[in-house]
Amino acid sequence: MSENKPLHIHSYKPTGFIGEYQKLIKDAVIPYQYSVLCDEAQDTEKSHVIANFINAGKALRGEDTADGFYGMVFQDSDAAKWLEAVGYSLAVFPDKGLEKTADELIDIIAQAQDSDGYLNTYYTIKDKDKRWTNILEGHELYCSGHMIEAAIAYFEGTGKDKLLKVMEKNAEHIYDVFISGGHKGYPGHPEIELALLRLYDVTKNEKCLQLAKHFIDIRGVDPHYYEKERQSRNWTVWNGDGKNHHYQQSYAPVKQQKNADGHSVRAVYLYTAMADLASKTDDTELYEACKNLCGSIVNKRMYVTGGIGSTAHGEAFTVDYNLPSDTVYAETCASIGLMFFMSKMLSNEIKSEYSDIMELAFYNTVLAGMQKDGKRFFYVNPLEVIPGISGEAVTHRHALPQRPKWYTCACCPPNVARLISSFGKYAYSEKDDTAYCHMFASGEAAFANGMKFTCDTDYPYDFEVSFKIEKGGKLAVRIPGWANGSYAVYVNNFPRDVAYENGYIYISADDGDNIKLKLQDKINVIYPSVKIPDLSGTVAISRGPLVYCFEGIDNNGSVLDLRLDNKGSFKAVDITDEVLGQTVMIEAEGVRVRDSGGLYSFSEPECENVSIRAVPYYLWGNRGENEMRVWIPKK
Amino acid sequence: MSENKPLHIHSYKPTGFIGEYQKLIKDAVIPYQYSVLCDEAQDTEKSHVIANFINAGKALRGEDTADGFYGMVFQDSDAAKWLEAVGYSLAVFPDKGLEKTADELIDIIAQAQDSDGYLNTYYTIKDKDKRWTNILEGHELYCSGHMIEAAIAYFEGTGKDKLLKVMEKNAEHIYDVFISGGHKGYPGHPEIELALLRLYDVTKNEKCLQLAKHFIDIRGVDPHYYEKERQSRNWTVWNGDGKNHHYQQSYAPVKQQKNADGHSVRAVYLYTAMADLASKTDDTELYEACKNLCGSIVNKRMYVTGGIGSTAHGEAFTVDYNLPSDTVYAETCASIGLMFFMSKMLSNEIKSEYSDIMELAFYNTVLAGMQKDGKRFFYVNPLEVIPGISGEAVTHRHALPQRPKWYTCACCPPNVARLISSFGKYAYSEKDDTAYCHMFASGEAAFANGMKFTCDTDYPYDFEVSFKIEKGGKLAVRIPGWANGSYAVYVNNFPRDVAYENGYIYISADDGDNIKLKLQDKINVIYPSVKIPDLSGTVAISRGPLVYCFEGIDNNGSVLDLRLDNKGSFKAVDITDEVLGQTVMIEAEGVRVRDSGGLYSFSEPECENVSIRAVPYYLWGNRGENEMRVWIPKK
Repeated sequence: MSENKPLHIHSYKPTGFIGEYQKLIKDAVIPYQYSVLCDEAQDTEKSHVIANFINAGKALRGEDTADGFYGMVFQDSDAAKWLEAVGYSLAVFPDKGLEKTADELIDIIAQAQDSDGYLNTYYTIKDKDKRWTNILEGHELYCSGHMIEAAIAYFEGTGKDKLLKVMEKNAEHIYDVFISGGHKGYPGHPEIELALLRLYDVTKNEKCLQLAKHFIDIRGVDPHYYEKERQSRNWTVWNGDGKNHHYQQSYAPVKQQKNADGHSVRAVYLYTAMADLASKTDDTELYEACKNLCGSIVNKRMYVTGGIGSTAHGEAFTVDYNLPSDTVYAETCASIGLMFFMSKMLSNEIKSEYSDIMELAFYNTVLAGMQKDGKRFFYVNPLEVIPGISGEAVTHRHALPQRPKWYTCACCPPNVARLISSFGKYAYSEKDDTAYCHMFASGEAAFANGMKFTCDTDYPYDFEVSFKIEKGGKLAVRIPGWANGSYAVYVNNFPRDVAYENGYIYISADDGDNIKLKLQDKINVIYPSVKIPDLSGTVAISRGPLVYCFEGIDNNGSVLDLRLDNKGSFKAVDITDEVLGQTVMIEAEGVRVRDSGGLYSFSEPECENVSIRAVPYYLWGNRGENEMRVWIPKK
Repeated sequence: MSENKPLHIHSYKPTGFIGEYQKLIKDAVIPYQYSVLCDEAQDTEKSHVIANFINAGKALRGEDTADGFYGMVFQDSDAAKWLEAVGYSLAVFPDKGLEKTADELIDIIAQAQDSDGYLNTYYTIKDKDKRWTNILEGHELYCSGHMIEAAIAYFEGTGKDKLLKVMEKNAEHIYDVFISGGHKGYPGHPEIELALLRLYDVTKNEKCLQLAKHFIDIRGVDPHYYEKERQSRNWTVWNGDGKNHHYQQSYAPVKQQKNADGHSVRAVYLYTAMADLASKTDDTELYEACKNLCGSIVNKRMYVTGGIGSTAHGEAFTVDYNLPSDTVYAETCASIGLMFFMSKMLSNEIKSEYSDIMELAFYNTVLAGMQKDGKRFFYVNPLEVIPGISGEAVTHRHALPQRPKWYTCACCPPNVARLISSFGKYAYSEKDDTAYCHMFASGEAAFANGMKFTCDTDYPYDFEVSFKIEKGGKLAVRIPGWANGSYAVYVNNFPRDVAYENGYIYISADDGDNIKLKLQDKINVIYPSVKIPDLSGTVAISRGPLVYCFEGIDNNGSVLDLRLDNKGSFKAVDITDEVLGQTVMIEAEGVRVRDSGGLYSFSEPECENVSIRAVPYYLWGNRGENEMRVWIPKK
């Protein structure tokens, strides 16, 4: 099988919607997150990430480690995700100052690496003897995985390979421990598998491929590995007993796993690596397993916003069709991981069913994870928020009605930054002589096969996409599922019938051609499966890839009393809001139910006809605490 | 204030619906539960309750305690609740064999009492030195409270006072520890307060009143008592740190508590004692606090079935209007406690708003707690059950789709037995020269004021109630809220205008009169407050005091796809079912939505008109595992 390759980070120059988001990451998120990493941000949780690396270097040199280690066992990964975002960002927005800051951090990180290649500040500072004794909870492999990704991004973005060499050495150290050394463990929090496969792409170091394959192959072969590990050591991080085999995705060898189970971020990171390995090794059995897991998510366990993880208990999947809107988890990182997984499914087969989900997750849950100003973040992305209940009831503590600044466990904010900064890698790819557009992103795209074009669109708010072809070739463009098959293609303003396969259209483009795709511009009413108990009798609305939500601020203060007329008229209204900026509001018809006052009443409450307003879900919670709902009862 | 006294257990001879339930308790529940207590029941959790008492006696005599103590720290209370049910039952159904069994158990219990009056098998067997050191978790006061109630019931039912004397001595011992001895603790699980007030009613021992008042008065005055207690001892039962002041109803002195908070059973047991004490001591300030707490429950935190406790986390109340149907707790014991509380509110003021809730809780959550055959029990009473989710998802583990036989923590089954066996005490009371009928219960009722009548009704399925007066007097009868003010009174078949106050009608009845009350016979559609997010767009139905539910077995296997026409016609249909016996099914109009197959769809699903069938909620789950819903989306 020939390989489907994402666009090189230098080969996509974003403009438009994505360009603005990448600029926000560069201007607001990266500096802000750096101030957090070095504990200079105001009113946020202490981070100590950089101090940890400095102290680890001191520990290795036998110096006093001053204030020691602080934070979660996986604290290192925050630096990695920040560096990764910086690497991508520098490719688009060169910035000598930022590059110098990053270079200095890389120097600090390099000094924290032990002579054998080991790199982890928690163990290096606290207790070297505990290395590799707690694969269940210890996150050594997880942190290495993220730092590998950072090294690749920084290498791709700047051409500098210092961190790449550090991490290749680290990967070889891990190879020595787990393959040469015969360590029986497999990653407690999968992540390094997908990173090693990416490192293999860059370095072609066979050990990286072998090690990734090893971790995937042995996972769940001995489902009791973690329990045995627990019994063999006298320390623990969170008292994990390793008995929850589904939580750990270790209940069976991965090829035999049928349902998306357990911790949702771990699950999709694992599946991403599985899909990538399947593609790299032409392992159809492994790809079949990936298809099952993908089907389990998409057909039975995914929110309409592309969120996954129905419960805060273990930040996990639960069971089929259990999709509560209010007590949901839908971690931002999980939807990022879902994008990774779908992207690697595309490496096996180009099918819009994968890219549709990638887009859904991005424009809804991933973007909702960040405040419009780039300074506050959601970890949990609820589909319903009711002040007084959300964030308050013991069952809703995690579902906050407002984005906090930073978290003790700060995995999501830097994850959003690196994802947005590398959007081009998910939007565009090439395989053989064909250039693929999986998601529409304005800007210039240049492919290794020679093709080059400029994409121009006001997506996700407008549904006309033009490709001005500089260098011709074969172009494949996804027709989104939300368009309901309603689209038209124009080449140099003439309608053109084009080939269509698995949700993609295929066009031969010549130099100078202007290819235009017009997609249905319609507001969709979304009906949930009757099998989802929490959504009985409700509908949601969407326009293009954007799922909408109803907020109190747009509806006279309350949403709980609104009922939507799903057969009424819907209107898209361009607005410019002080906080939200330019966006499209949807006006729908419906009624407002008058409250009877009592908890239960035998009289039907009166209703009045009202206009109901909705904004894109990704913008919710930007204008103060208020009621919010994605799913609204039908009139 | 003159006292409102419940009917003596000997003064009500039940027939009809309640009579049959009391017979079931006598024939099935009491023998079955006894077999559990002595570990002779098949396929149930081990109990060891009686063995614990035997072993405690041995410990006191310095003999080998054989297999020691087994079970929860409050295991003793299972014996108490069983004995209480037996005491009540023997008053109605004399049974020499059962009485002998109970007498023998009482002998065993008496032998487990220490010479100073102390009685608790856990501490007596395991470690005498730990007595009274863990009021937070230790349940010594809770177990004493239940045994006091058992002693009263057995004395009232049989005239035998051996256990009463044991428990009066025990109460005096507690008085010595907490009042004379200056122990600063107050009950971790409130219960003894209400029991002491009942013991005072029977014995007039002032120490009982003083001790109850003491426990109520000091509660929450030092909100940090439990934390200090925890720090002062080196052992714990469940690692409780005493810091959750709302869970413990200790965040403020009880008169200042505004919301029904924390563990719901503990809350209503406490409020019951508060209301009783307020009535006994004419403490209007305390009664005002009770009214606030009652309002908090009834207006903001109660299920339509009379269930309370919205979450399994701490078996507790959460926040206003958070009333999920599927992850609900609604413990059977909590609704029993709510009946207690409402009954004591009636001691302060005769108002149907209290008796309405007492009836609602009884006919729905309390009765639903027990299988029709009396052999299986629900601890948790969900308002929605979906096989595959309920009992399966980590958030739904507690909400079982079928009643288990017995529980490790077996508080609910014997609680149902004692409540049903003493139903007359809640249905009838007297105050000055007036006899009150709070709930309709067929049978003969004789009052201390001389009045005597036979009540005849097919309630809760028929809404005509006749009182054949043997000895006349003033009769006050509640007009249920569900009747919407629609009722008629006939004396000797002639319509009679009668006085009405606070939901009760007042009639002077002469010897030989036949007083008939006809209540509206109508199916009510119930509309939830718009403030309850989980119920948006849904309705429920009820007939008389019975809330109905929709089960798959009556609806071609599925309920999730049904939508009710709340403006359609409703029909009550008498049926006789093999398992359910004689009952009334409701047939309503509605539609069944065809599932589109996918998780989300842009096309509105097709519907077909169907007849929708509902059965009384208390009968749900008797015919195998299936979907069940109380709240159904409107068409």
